[in-house]
Amino acid sequence: MRLEHPHRTERFGAVRIHELQRVVELDSGAERAEDLSDDHPRSSQIVSQEAIRAIEREMVIVVPCMNETRRVIEGVLSGIPHHCLIVLVSNSARQPVDRYEIEVQTVEQFCRFAERPALTVHQRDPGLAAAIKAAGMPELIDEDGLVRSGKGEAMIVGMALAAMSGRRYVGYVDADNYVPGAVHEYCKAYAAGLHLANSPYAMVRISWHSKPKLQDGRLFFSRRGRTSEVTNHFLNRLIGEYSGFGTDTVATGNAGEHALSLELGLRLRLAGGFAIEPHEYVDLFEQFGGVLDSPHPAVMASGVPVLQIETRNPHFHDNKGEEHVQDMRTQALNVLYHSPVCLPQVREAILAFLRSQGTLGPDAEPPRERIYPPVGQLALDRLYDVMVTEARTFHQVERRLPVGVRREPAIQRHHGPVSGAGRPSA
Amino acid sequence: MRLEHPHRTERFGAVRIHELQRVVELDSGAERAEDLSDDHPRSSQIVSQEAIRAIEREMVIVVPCMNETRRVIEGVLSGIPHHCLIVLVSNSARQPVDRYEIEVQTVEQFCRFAERPALTVHQRDPGLAAAIKAAGMPELIDEDGLVRSGKGEAMIVGMALAAMSGRRYVGYVDADNYVPGAVHEYCKAYAAGLHLANSPYAMVRISWHSKPKLQDGRLFFSRRGRTSEVTNHFLNRLIGEYSGFGTDTVATGNAGEHALSLELGLRLRLAGGFAIEPHEYVDLFEQFGGVLDSPHPAVMASGVPVLQIETRNPHFHDNKGEEHVQDMRTQALNVLYHSPVCLPQVREAILAFLRSQGTLGPDAEPPRERIYPPVGQLALDRLYDVMVTEARTFHQVERRLPVGVRREPAIQRHHGPVSGAGRPSA
Repeated sequence: MRLEHPHRTERFGAVRIHELQRVVELDSGAERAEDLSDDHPRSSQIVSQEAIRAIEREMVIVVPCMNETRRVIEGVLSGIPHHCLIVLVSNSARQPVDRYEIEVQTVEQFCRFAERPALTVHQRDPGLAAAIKAAGMPELIDEDGLVRSGKGEAMIVGMALAAMSGRRYVGYVDADNYVPGAVHEYCKAYAAGLHLANSPYAMVRISWHSKPKLQDGRLFFSRRGRTSEVTNHFLNRLIGEYSGFGTDTVATGNAGEHALSLELGLRLRLAGGFAIEPHEYVDLFEQFGGVLDSPHPAVMASGVPVLQIETRNPHFHDNKGEEHVQDMRTQALNVLYHSPVCLPQVREAILAFLRSQGTLGPDAEPPRERIYPPVGQLALDRLYDVMVTEARTFHQVERRLPVGVRREPAIQRHHGPVSGAGRPSA
Repeated sequence: MRLEHPHRTERFGAVRIHELQRVVELDSGAERAEDLSDDHPRSSQIVSQEAIRAIEREMVIVVPCMNETRRVIEGVLSGIPHHCLIVLVSNSARQPVDRYEIEVQTVEQFCRFAERPALTVHQRDPGLAAAIKAAGMPELIDEDGLVRSGKGEAMIVGMALAAMSGRRYVGYVDADNYVPGAVHEYCKAYAAGLHLANSPYAMVRISWHSKPKLQDGRLFFSRRGRTSEVTNHFLNRLIGEYSGFGTDTVATGNAGEHALSLELGLRLRLAGGFAIEPHEYVDLFEQFGGVLDSPHPAVMASGVPVLQIETRNPHFHDNKGEEHVQDMRTQALNVLYHSPVCLPQVREAILAFLRSQGTLGPDAEPPRERIYPPVGQLALDRLYDVMVTEARTFHQVERRLPVGVRREPAIQRHHGPVSGAGRPSA
């Protein structure tokens, strides 16, 4: 993959937000790092095939899924590079038709053909809730004793499974993507970005090139989503109020498509629902922004690079309707509003905006979104043991190997290099 | 790339048409051929990265272009793997705005960033016509003394440039594709297919997964194009009449996206306009079907594999309207009708169909489409010399290299390993 150089970087304490950089070529042709003779100044950054593969072998791709059709899911899976581990976290309806069962079959069929492993689990499986509780995060459980519904909650479960696999990176890809080639590009951009970030605590966020919309019977390739514009505006405002200089660096406030090192991810306090993506920025500012005391001096010393990559493919997905957009926008602003790093001027501006939109009554305050403790606090051994014994929807699709050779489970029982990484006391 | 095994093959003399095989994974993860331990039966075919690269280094991608926007062209270019040589053959308007000039600028800008070479030419450049005439194919020139307009004619020019470059394969990608990831997948499928075909005389034809259409204000993912169904039906009928067994093997009669070895391509008699793609099948049957005498006994002995690959991405392009579809369909049937290998029963069926559609009067005969002599008959040296001196729209974008190192032109003056391959007397 070949990317533009980012020319500017916005700082917020130890957080380094790189300006949006575009993908130049999906395939740069460079196989090994040695192929890149570095004796002339380049106008672009090349990441070799070899470097991308090295990240992919350590990457889990989590696909949060809700009532998607088999065909669309199959397309998404086909775009995920072979060496990435697939984790499907579903909140699909189980009645009158058990859609989760169809999804599991789709994953199994694909993995049999593609000779690769995968993990699947249903978000509302009582056994999963029992495992999460046993592992030490009762906050995730609702009144019915199940893991709460919500995209953020699905992503938290996905991150826990990723940590159990012993791999080092986790990336997210929505299940409702009609373009397998876009999924493919997202994953390649994750790997390229994580390689370029060259830090144990890195995040890569995608800004899609355009979003085709039906408009007056024809297609219009819209550059920015309706939610993103608002979220990015206020995130930039939050940063600008500290520096005294206006900025438009943040272009990925609502990025559903993003990836991060587990060393960083396990330390983050993730939000529920649609607040999860913008809240990642907020939590980075809170934990590593230098405004509040950081529980992780080692991360502060090393710095947290956030790369923003504009992919080439259009983001072509199901239209979830106006209400969905409204929800996303409001939840993003709610977390910004309540953050201790949000200065009064920005708070006032958020209030004014929400009131002008009619989303908030004249005297009401924005509600608080749920913020969960870091996934790194989970006791992974206990999580695994209870899931295996109690979570009936938990499927481990193993990599099929020649007869006589042992099968390769996706989860190795030793839980990899990130153990304890997220514990605030570490 | 990982593909399904094709389980059946249709024969027509030396022509071996493989059943449609689907792409399983865009990226199979296999780097080198050695990575594929072949000690167990696989349910799919894997082509390693190394094998794909080897083909890409020898492949030219021709992009026929007519009045596309800069953004769309840039997206298409970004999807073409780095090692492929880009050739843009444009028939865009030059007035009131010189759209060709915009296209050239887009290609140059992209290539500067991506450090790769390209060739561009305008189909209606008098200098190109002079070069084609001098090289020995006056049939391509119209009353105005210019190369005829038409997609087939653009593709013929593209093949001639491909031959000049000294590379061994040529693939075609339409410029009106909105999904760079789809273009990328086509090119990877070409390379994977040409590798698997393992023959000097091979062709790979793409069947896209689906084609999103606006229908009643929502998107419908149609599986087959309106033209393709008809063309495929009659091509299969033509084959079936010889074998005595009905078949539905041909699924790519109108495939705009296809690639072939120049050893084969330079021998084909290509048709003009939209007849070019279906006529490739017809010409294979005429030259290598064993019904008529073949001018190429060596090819007959070796066989001509045709691989058909169903890609994962939707084919998402500009809607050219009903008339375009009608044109494509009629021109396809015209070439079938007039082929000496088309049996009377099939001819009758074509007549009946065209009359039922109202495309043909009750006593009229389908018109003949233009069929050109093989591109291999062109004197490439003369073509090059006249183009360089007279074709003012002919741009050779060179690969920019560090100062002091020589630039690498796309065209080497010795014209590669295919010299004379297409001459029927060879």
